[in-house]
Amino acid sequence: MNSFGHIFRITSFGESHGAGLGVVVDGCPAGLKLDLEAIQHELDRRKPGQNPLTTQRKESDTFELLSGMAGAVTTGAPLAFLVRNEDQKSADYDHIEHVFRPSHADYGWFAKYGLRDHRGGGRSSARETLARVIGGAVAKQLLQTACGLQIEAWVHAIHTLELPNWPASLLLETQAQQWTRCPDANLAQQMADAIENARQAGDSLGGVIGCRIQHVPPGLGAPVFDKVHALLGHAVLSINAVKGIEFGSGFEGSRLKGSEHNDEFYMEGERVRTRTNHSGGMQGGISNGEDILFKTAFKPTSTIMQDQRSVDTAGNEAIAKGKGRHDPCVVPRAVPIVEAMAALVMADLWLRSKADRI
Amino acid sequence: MNSFGHIFRITSFGESHGAGLGVVVDGCPAGLKLDLEAIQHELDRRKPGQNPLTTQRKESDTFELLSGMAGAVTTGAPLAFLVRNEDQKSADYDHIEHVFRPSHADYGWFAKYGLRDHRGGGRSSARETLARVIGGAVAKQLLQTACGLQIEAWVHAIHTLELPNWPASLLLETQAQQWTRCPDANLAQQMADAIENARQAGDSLGGVIGCRIQHVPPGLGAPVFDKVHALLGHAVLSINAVKGIEFGSGFEGSRLKGSEHNDEFYMEGERVRTRTNHSGGMQGGISNGEDILFKTAFKPTSTIMQDQRSVDTAGNEAIAKGKGRHDPCVVPRAVPIVEAMAALVMADLWLRSKADRI
Amino acid sequence: MNSFGHIFRITSFGESHGAGLGVVVDGCPAGLKLDLEAIQHELDRRKPGQNPLTTQRKESDTFELLSGMAGAVTTGAPLAFLVRNEDQKSADYDHIEHVFRPSHADYGWFAKYGLRDHRGGGRSSARETLARVIGGAVAKQLLQTACGLQIEAWVHAIHTLELPNWPASLLLETQAQQWTRCPDANLAQQMADAIENARQAGDSLGGVIGCRIQHVPPGLGAPVFDKVHALLGHAVLSINAVKGIEFGSGFEGSRLKGSEHNDEFYMEGERVRTRTNHSGGMQGGISNGEDILFKTAFKPTSTIMQDQRSVDTAGNEAIAKGKGRHDPCVVPRAVPIVEAMAALVMADLWLRSKADRI
Amino acid sequence: MNSFGHIFRITSFGESHGAGLGVVVDGCPAGLKLDLEAIQHELDRRKPGQNPLTTQRKESDTFELLSGMAGAVTTGAPLAFLVRNEDQKSADYDHIEHVFRPSHADYGWFAKYGLRDHRGGGRSSARETLARVIGGAVAKQLLQTACGLQIEAWVHAIHTLELPNWPASLLLETQAQQWTRCPDANLAQQMADAIENARQAGDSLGGVIGCRIQHVPPGLGAPVFDKVHALLGHAVLSINAVKGIEFGSGFEGSRLKGSEHNDEFYMEGERVRTRTNHSGGMQGGISNGEDILFKTAFKPTSTIMQDQRSVDTAGNEAIAKGKGRHDPCVVPRAVPIVEAMAALVMADLWLRSKADRI
Repeated sequence: MNSFGHIFRITSFGESHGAGLGVVVDGCPAGLKLDLEAIQHELDRRKPGQNPLTTQRKESDTFELLSGMAGAVTTGAPLAFLVRNEDQKSADYDHIEHVFRPSHADYGWFAKYGLRDHRGGGRSSARETLARVIGGAVAKQLLQTACGLQIEAWVHAIHTLELPNWPASLLLETQAQQWTRCPDANLAQQMADAIENARQAGDSLGGVIGCRIQHVPPGLGAPVFDKVHALLGHAVLSINAVKGIEFGSGFEGSRLKGSEHNDEFYMEGERVRTRTNHSGGMQGGISNGEDILFKTAFKPTSTIMQDQRSVDTAGNEAIAKGKGRHDPCVVPRAVPIVEAMAALVMADLWLRSKADRI
Repeated sequence: MNSFGHIFRITSFGESHGAGLGVVVDGCPAGLKLDLEAIQHELDRRKPGQNPLTTQRKESDTFELLSGMAGAVTTGAPLAFLVRNEDQKSADYDHIEHVFRPSHADYGWFAKYGLRDHRGGGRSSARETLARVIGGAVAKQLLQTACGLQIEAWVHAIHTLELPNWPASLLLETQAQQWTRCPDANLAQQMADAIENARQAGDSLGGVIGCRIQHVPPGLGAPVFDKVHALLGHAVLSINAVKGIEFGSGFEGSRLKGSEHNDEFYMEGERVRTRTNHSGGMQGGISNGEDILFKTAFKPTSTIMQDQRSVDTAGNEAIAKGKGRHDPCVVPRAVPIVEAMAALVMADLWLRSKADRI
Repeated sequence: MNSFGHIFRITSFGESHGAGLGVVVDGCPAGLKLDLEAIQHELDRRKPGQNPLTTQRKESDTFELLSGMAGAVTTGAPLAFLVRNEDQKSADYDHIEHVFRPSHADYGWFAKYGLRDHRGGGRSSARETLARVIGGAVAKQLLQTACGLQIEAWVHAIHTLELPNWPASLLLETQAQQWTRCPDANLAQQMADAIENARQAGDSLGGVIGCRIQHVPPGLGAPVFDKVHALLGHAVLSINAVKGIEFGSGFEGSRLKGSEHNDEFYMEGERVRTRTNHSGGMQGGISNGEDILFKTAFKPTSTIMQDQRSVDTAGNEAIAKGKGRHDPCVVPRAVPIVEAMAALVMADLWLRSKADRI
Repeated sequence: MNSFGHIFRITSFGESHGAGLGVVVDGCPAGLKLDLEAIQHELDRRKPGQNPLTTQRKESDTFELLSGMAGAVTTGAPLAFLVRNEDQKSADYDHIEHVFRPSHADYGWFAKYGLRDHRGGGRSSARETLARVIGGAVAKQLLQTACGLQIEAWVHAIHTLELPNWPASLLLETQAQQWTRCPDANLAQQMADAIENARQAGDSLGGVIGCRIQHVPPGLGAPVFDKVHALLGHAVLSINAVKGIEFGSGFEGSRLKGSEHNDEFYMEGERVRTRTNHSGGMQGGISNGEDILFKTAFKPTSTIMQDQRSVDTAGNEAIAKGKGRHDPCVVPRAVPIVEAMAALVMADLWLRSKADRI
């Protein structure tokens, strides 16, 4: 299924080398004042060609709104957005028409469907995340308007270069000015250098993205299967190249004792707070009003500018050549995608929560 | 929603201190020979009171099959199972009727619903996982019969005691005989000692569970949002106390370069194989026929036998007393639960895959 | 799928000759005071053996509540109900083990699943509607509490005996006292006679049920596919033996001109009303605050006490014998079932409507 | 929700006076050879301006395929289609900006969303059915290829002019040549005259569409809630202006006795057949291999060229003026829409049936 969400639901379509990519955003309440420039801004954050570190594929990635608004507000009808592909060089992919690229979706999709659209990975291309960023941008505005909830992600690690702690407070402006989207200026420079070195070596790097969701109303999340972090996990793990996710204390927390890990409650005025936040903003899968915190791991980009041994669709050994225009490290561009997926989950849970009580 | 799955779907109900727990298993194909003893065996694996390390709550946890079979086979009608609660001591929970236990679901659920069933955590109790283990046991048999797929989980770490590698081959019999479900006998003994020490100190421990899915047909997984690992993430993260999940190389893989991480293809007879399996059995979210591998982190049990500072439902500071019968470490008992959730996802994807091609 | 509803969702299980029938009611808001006797009263309305006109199968049809309440109110957890089968005489069905009964589900289910549970029709028995009546009874109480909405159905026709008009105002007490559930006392007596005559002839009768939903908030219904009457149609057509449904002016309305059929608006104080109600309470699939009105057609019961020509599972000509305990006319007992299905739809739409506007 | 279907699922978007209408078709199996001209042909069948009887709004209604194919076959990725609006005269609707048109969606949508897009009915316009016709055209091709299933609808009645029987065999070519889509040439002429008379009087007519689904594999339909006719009912009742649906013997069948109505089985070679088909091709909600037959009632078009009393958004009495370009009778143009909705249901059930048996 190419849809995600129960009430606030997006349906994504399109391929990297077809007419374009698009998304239908269903379930957005009527009467939301929608800032279309803010949506374009989110797209610009994930756009290729922003700086020397990203793929030199040139796409303006401007969207057309096809439906769902009257004047400046949403009408309750589904919003639909279309982004045309522009800089397609399908011939760039001729060399892999019959060869499965190592660690790409090529072989799995071929095994699934008995055929594949080899041009740019077709539907499995990360270009599909355009649709998610647009849907997430609508979700962000809904959440901001409805309950003040805010979502910020950042580059937490590139290769072995890693922030030592959760950043206490993000300097969004500064971050945005840095290609790497790492809030520590020194580390950011080292990361940029590492990415450039990888590019020159025809190699690629992975990393970690951190995310903080602030001003979360307590009580979001659905019982049992649709816990906040289970849905966030579903959403974020579905992003291309993601291999893991952890919430709050995460894997490290499994090495603590209960007496060290438990988050004691106290009152801050009228508000129930916790002294620590190992839980990462949710307990029993329901938000408790503290910041939701998670980190997610990206493997190094599968496309490298090196020859690799592989097999072809006929079952013969073959060489997968490294060609084309690709990011040596997708992590910085993935920051708005992580935010978007988180926003989609939170918007859905916010709307669902309206039916919690009689 | 208390349902999980698109075609093979379970619906869970019940509370730890009500009449019982149950599950409806919908979408199981007709004609499956179902071994009810094997289902009971899975329940026994998660049962409390199995050994000195687990809670001394005594429950026989035997299920009644309410519907869905004629003779020894499934009919296509929904299977329904009921497990009665037996050893309920609701009075054990009087001391927390108005106090939120730190790091439990208590406060979040209260914020969500404006009330809560404090007895044993009510619906948020890990006793709910009974329903999942039953549903997963059906899914396991379906998968075994339909395509030979097998799922094995094990205790990978308790507190700071951790296996150094993915276990190459599990000795299931041996493992089953060990309370800790760790395949390394020496480490298993150290883990048992650590849990016993924690119990005596009124404290609790967390850990990591590993899981291997073997004999996976290539081509499972749904496009874009329902990638194999996104659904496994959703499923496993919804288990009580889980704080993270990683697939294949996981977080460590983000520290490798693409040239190190990529899994090259080769032919093994007619079969496409990869030389390494950093991808953990899936690429682009679609299974490639290699073993699916993941690890999942459990926080230490929230219930400890110590007084903790907290607040009550009226907004006053209060002490949450440590009382009741609880596991100092739930990780060993969670092994069949992880397997069950994985089986639910794989069974659903197996059935979905039947509509992949014309 | 054995589930129905998007937010307020029931999952039904059980067979007529297994352990029992049951239902999980998911999505009911927390804090609803639930009157369990009122639920039992609805079950009693559909119970067999109420009077000489219905099957003499004796079932107390009392339910056990398995989960979802604390004290007198719902907790937000799923409600689960179980009704044990008591008066099963499976041997009654030995004669049809291999013969397909004409106009029963027997052949279709055999073709679908390659096997069937012949005892009492198994899962295709109308006894399954127990689950719906319970779920609908919860929905009714939710609607009554939340917005005062009320649902009343009645027998509109039996065989060729038919009410000339929509009954202006139902006398519920009187109706309940009459076996036929027809609000016109004279016609009710004729209907009772006709049913008794059919019973003596070993034959069966069909009929029509009418339904009125009052105090409907304007604005319910979902855009495009989930129009109020589309969902009501889905729900009611899924009741055993139903062959048609029409809303407001229905099929007769297709013989009017627009100038005759249109419902003009006027103001009644602050409230927008229509002078006529050919639309049956909804326009463009959205409720307009007028009464929702529909009629639904039931075919005559398929089981008759006569020999009929048929075929068996081996593909041979065979005689389907008329045996067992059956209603010569199910229409009176189906009145609470129609109400229940309508209530399920309206409760779901009510909860969905909470997310309509920012 | 603007989506319909469980496995084969369409998502519709767009408004009559926005950029255009579109549809995402998800779940279509890979490898289907798709005839795009045949899809356009279906669109042409519902197009306005085909003949003097329909609205003179001029739209070419040609679609652009945005995604989902490689060469001539589907890839398993979602198909997306866009139809641009061309002949929009939004000013035509200025006179109803604040007035609710009788029997239109205007008031209900205003009550629901607190605002409405008055231009051409916005999202509630029957122009939305473009999306369904495209999706249904894909479904038709899938069904034709996969199992030979075919769907034919026709105009069964206009106003009081009605076919006496189910047409035994349709002459598709002839029918297509007649504006009314009634298979009886004489009656067709009378219908055309009646529609022309209504147009001249500024009035409108309703009617009935019949539909026959041939070559249906036995065993389609899902248990309990998703019976074939329940889903067909849901689908067809969601078409604009539909007020009722009946299957097989329908409402008339409720006036027969069981001994008259039951469809006896016999063998036709290897195939199980019924001598009569009062059941309309399904029993217990599961297809039995006979033709599926249904009729559906359309109310007269709400827009008439006459002044009508109404109220405005401020709650004042007002006159709704009759202006604009509209069909005096939509029934002929709705024939392909009914077929499309039926095709969507059958394609979904066909794909679902693949998981029926182990």
